[in-house]
Amino acid sequence: MTSSRIRQALASALDPDLGTVDGLSWLNRAIVGIIVLSLLLVILETEPLVYAAHERLFTLLELMILTIFMGEYAARLWVCVENPRFSSRLAYARRPMAVLDLVVIVTMAVSLVGFEGALLRLLRLARLLRVAKLGRFAEAFRTIGEAVGARRYELLVSLAVAGGLLLVSASALYLIEGGRQQEAFGSIPRAMWWSVATLTTVGYGDVVPATPLGKVFATLTAITGVGLIAMPAGILASAFSDAMQRKREKDREEDRDGV
Amino acid sequence: MTSSRIRQALASALDPDLGTVDGLSWLNRAIVGIIVLSLLLVILETEPLVYAAHERLFTLLELMILTIFMGEYAARLWVCVENPRFSSRLAYARRPMAVLDLVVIVTMAVSLVGFEGALLRLLRLARLLRVAKLGRFAEAFRTIGEAVGARRYELLVSLAVAGGLLLVSASALYLIEGGRQQEAFGSIPRAMWWSVATLTTVGYGDVVPATPLGKVFATLTAITGVGLIAMPAGILASAFSDAMQRKREKDREEDRDGV
Amino acid sequence: MTSSRIRQALASALDPDLGTVDGLSWLNRAIVGIIVLSLLLVILETEPLVYAAHERLFTLLELMILTIFMGEYAARLWVCVENPRFSSRLAYARRPMAVLDLVVIVTMAVSLVGFEGALLRLLRLARLLRVAKLGRFAEAFRTIGEAVGARRYELLVSLAVAGGLLLVSASALYLIEGGRQQEAFGSIPRAMWWSVATLTTVGYGDVVPATPLGKVFATLTAITGVGLIAMPAGILASAFSDAMQRKREKDREEDRDGV
Amino acid sequence: MTSSRIRQALASALDPDLGTVDGLSWLNRAIVGIIVLSLLLVILETEPLVYAAHERLFTLLELMILTIFMGEYAARLWVCVENPRFSSRLAYARRPMAVLDLVVIVTMAVSLVGFEGALLRLLRLARLLRVAKLGRFAEAFRTIGEAVGARRYELLVSLAVAGGLLLVSASALYLIEGGRQQEAFGSIPRAMWWSVATLTTVGYGDVVPATPLGKVFATLTAITGVGLIAMPAGILASAFSDAMQRKREKDREEDRDGV
Repeated sequence: MTSSRIRQALASALDPDLGTVDGLSWLNRAIVGIIVLSLLLVILETEPLVYAAHERLFTLLELMILTIFMGEYAARLWVCVENPRFSSRLAYARRPMAVLDLVVIVTMAVSLVGFEGALLRLLRLARLLRVAKLGRFAEAFRTIGEAVGARRYELLVSLAVAGGLLLVSASALYLIEGGRQQEAFGSIPRAMWWSVATLTTVGYGDVVPATPLGKVFATLTAITGVGLIAMPAGILASAFSDAMQRKREKDREEDRDGV
Repeated sequence: MTSSRIRQALASALDPDLGTVDGLSWLNRAIVGIIVLSLLLVILETEPLVYAAHERLFTLLELMILTIFMGEYAARLWVCVENPRFSSRLAYARRPMAVLDLVVIVTMAVSLVGFEGALLRLLRLARLLRVAKLGRFAEAFRTIGEAVGARRYELLVSLAVAGGLLLVSASALYLIEGGRQQEAFGSIPRAMWWSVATLTTVGYGDVVPATPLGKVFATLTAITGVGLIAMPAGILASAFSDAMQRKREKDREEDRDGV
Repeated sequence: MTSSRIRQALASALDPDLGTVDGLSWLNRAIVGIIVLSLLLVILETEPLVYAAHERLFTLLELMILTIFMGEYAARLWVCVENPRFSSRLAYARRPMAVLDLVVIVTMAVSLVGFEGALLRLLRLARLLRVAKLGRFAEAFRTIGEAVGARRYELLVSLAVAGGLLLVSASALYLIEGGRQQEAFGSIPRAMWWSVATLTTVGYGDVVPATPLGKVFATLTAITGVGLIAMPAGILASAFSDAMQRKREKDREEDRDGV
Repeated sequence: MTSSRIRQALASALDPDLGTVDGLSWLNRAIVGIIVLSLLLVILETEPLVYAAHERLFTLLELMILTIFMGEYAARLWVCVENPRFSSRLAYARRPMAVLDLVVIVTMAVSLVGFEGALLRLLRLARLLRVAKLGRFAEAFRTIGEAVGARRYELLVSLAVAGGLLLVSASALYLIEGGRQQEAFGSIPRAMWWSVATLTTVGYGDVVPATPLGKVFATLTAITGVGLIAMPAGILASAFSDAMQRKREKDREEDRDGV
C-alpha cells in the first residue's frame, strides 16, 4: 500500500465528511471512548481518597492519553489535505476544533510537568476542556439545538417572566420575614436564594418562612413555580412536535420526488 | 435642523408606533438597560453588607437615574403630539404608562429626600415599581399571555382540582399526625404548609410525617402531586402547539393573498 | 305574582337545566360562595389559636350556614316538580345530590348539638363533606375528567412502571444502606419512603444515602424519576391536544351544518 | 369431559394466544393477583417489626404460593402442545418465560429450606424476581416502550446534555465551595451528589452552597435543571402525540378497507 493510499484510508476513517459509513467510524468511536475515559480520570483525580492511593497510576494514564491525543492531532494534520474544504494544512490548523486539540494537548503537558498550589489546581481543571473535543462528533446536538433555537424567543420571555416572579416573591418575603430571620431574608438578594429554590421546586429546605403570612406567600410562590416549570415544558413540547412534523413532511416530499 | 424636525426624529426613536425599525430603537434599548440597572440598584441596596460600604455611591447613582427618568418623561411629553392617537399633551399625560412614569419619579425623589424608620423602608421598596416601566416594551408578554389566556378556563379548573387535593391531603394528615406533631399538623391550616410543599414537589423537608400511615398518605399526595404538575404542563403544551399552528396557517394565508 | 309564578322563577334560578342564562345564575353563584366560605370556616376551626378566641362566632356562623342550607334544601324540594325529569318530589329526594344535601345538614346539626372527645373531632371533620355540594355546579371537571379518562390506560401503565421502579430502587437501597442506616433503610417498606420522595422529585431530605454506592443508586433513581414525571406530562399533553382538536373539528362541522 | 377437552379448555384459559376473550382470562387474572400478593409478602418480610411477629405465617403463605407456582408451571407445560408455535414440550420449556418460572420456583424452595447469614438475605431478595413473571401479561408496556423507543435517540442526547451540565456545575461548585465545605464539595465526584439533587430538582438539602458565588452558580444550575426536565417531557409529549395520531390514521384506513 502506497503512502497516499494509507492517507486516503486514514482520512475516510478520521474525517466524517469523507467517511462512507453512516454514523461514526470505528476509529472515531475509539477516540470518543478515550475522551470519555480521560474525562473520568480528571474527575476522579480531584477526589483525594482516590488520588492519594493511585497517584502514579493517574500520571501514567494521563501520559498515555496525552500520547494518543498528540498522535490524533498529527494524523488529522497529515490527512486534512484529502478534504477539498482545506486549501492547505495551515487552513486546517486554524480551524477552532484544531486549535482546541492543540490547547488540550498543551494544558495536559503543562499540568504533567507540574506546578505548585492554586495555579496547578486550576490547570488540572482546565483539562476538563477536553470535553469540547466531543463537539466534533455530536451532530445530534445540532438537531436538538435547532429545535430549542427556533423557540429562543419564547424561552427568553419565559425566563423574563421567571425573573419578574423571582423579584416579586423575594421582595415579599424580605418585607415579611426580613425582621425575624435576618440571615435568610434580611435583604432581597438573600431572600432570592429561597425564592429560586422554591420557584424551581428544588426546595432545599435550608431556609423556610416562619410566619403564617410568609407561608401564605411561599404557597403562592410554589404554585406559581409549578406553572413556571410548565411553560418551558409546553414550549419545548410543541417545538419538538413541530420539528418532527416538519421532518416527516420533508421525508415524504423526498420520497415523492424520488419516484 | 429645525425644532420640529428634532421632535419628529425623537418621536420616531421614542414611540414604537412611529418607529420605522423592527424591534426596539437604540434609544428605547438604552432606556430598558437603565431600568434594569436601576432595578439591580434597588435590590442591592437592601443588602446591609453592600449598602453600608457604598452608601454615597448608591445615592449618586439613584440621583443620576432620577435625572434620566425625568428627562425621558419630559421628552415623551414633548414629542407625544407627533402621534395622531393623542389629541393633546393632556390626553397623553392621562394614559396609565405616563402616570406610572410620574409615580416612579415621585417615589424616587421622595425616598432620596429621606424619611426615618419603617416608612422609608416601604418607600424604598416602592421604587421596585419601576419594573412596570418595562411593560411599555414587552409586546412578547402579550403573545404568551394570549396563549395562556386562551386556556384560562382549563388552568382555573386544574387550580380548583389542586385546591381540592390540598384540602383532602391536609385533612388526612391532620387526622393522622395531628396528635403526635402538634406544631406541624395540629390543624388543617398548619398541615396545609406540608401539603403545599409536597403537592408542588418542592419538598422542603422541614416537616415530614412520622407514622407509617402518615407516610402512606404522604406517598399518595406526592404521586398525585406529580399528576397535578403534569396537568398545567399538558394544557400549556397544547396551548402553545395550537397558537403556533394558528400562526403558521395565518402566515400561509397571507403568503397566498400576497401572490 | 301567584305562587306558581314564584315557583317557576325560583326553579329557573336554582336548576341549571331550566335556567335561561349561560353559566351559573346569581342564586347559584351565591350558594357556591356560601359553600366555599363555610369550608374555610371548618378549616379555620381546627386551628386552636383561632378557635379558642372566637368560639362563639364560629358557632353563630355555623348556625347561619345551617339555616341557609336548610332553606336551600326546602326550596329545591319545592321547585323540583317544575323540571319534567322528576316525576315526583320523592324521585328528586332520592337523587344522590339531594341525599348529600340532607347528609350535610344532619352532620352540621349533630356537630352543633355537640359531643365529647374523638367522636366530635371526627364529626366536625365530616362537615368537610360539604365540598361535594360543589359537584352540582362543576361541569368543567367533567371535560377535564374525560380528557384524562381517555388516557386512563396509558396513565395506569405509567403508574405500574412507577411501581416497578419504586420496588427496584427501594430494594437496592435496602441492600446497600440497610446495614448502616437501620431506621431509614432497614427494610424495603422503610426504604420506600425515601424512594417515593426521590422518584417524585419531592426530596424532603429527612433521609439520604450515606455511602458512595448508595449515592450512585440514588442518582439513577433521581434521573429515572425525572423521566417518570415526564411520562404522565407527555400523555396528558397529547390528551389535551387531541381533545381540543376534536372539539375544534366538531365546532367547524356544526358551523358548516348551521349554514 | 375427556382429558383432551380439559387440556384444550385449560390452554385457552392459560395461553393468551389461544384465548377467545379480549384481555386476560379469569385464570390469568388470578395468577396476576397471586404474583402481586406474593411480592407484597417478600417486601413485608424484610421489615423486622412485621416479620418477627408473624414468622410462621410468612412461611406458611410462602409455601402456599410455591405450591400454586409449581401447579402453574406443570399446567403450562401440560397444555403448551395445544399451541402450534411449540413443536414439543421441550421447545416450550426452553423459552425464557418458562425458564424464569422454574428459576422462581427454585429460589423460593431454596430460601424456604433456609440458609444462614448474608447468603440467605440475598436469596430472600432474589425472590423479588417473581415480578418478572408479570411480563407475560403486560402487552401494554410494549406500546409505551415503542413510543419511548422511537425517540431513543433524542432521549439519549438529552441524557448526554444532562451529563455535560452535571460535569460543569459540579466542577464549578468544587472550585468555589471545595475549600470551605471539604466533606460536601471537596472533589468533583462529591460535588456531583449536590449537582444531581439540584439538576433533577429533588433538592434534598443535606448539602447546600454557603458562599454568595456558590449560590449564584446553584441558581444557574437549578434554572438549567428546570429546562433539562422540560426536555424529556417535551420529547415524550410529542412521541405520544405522534403515536396516537399514527394509531388513529391506521384505524381510519382499516375502517375504509373494511367497507
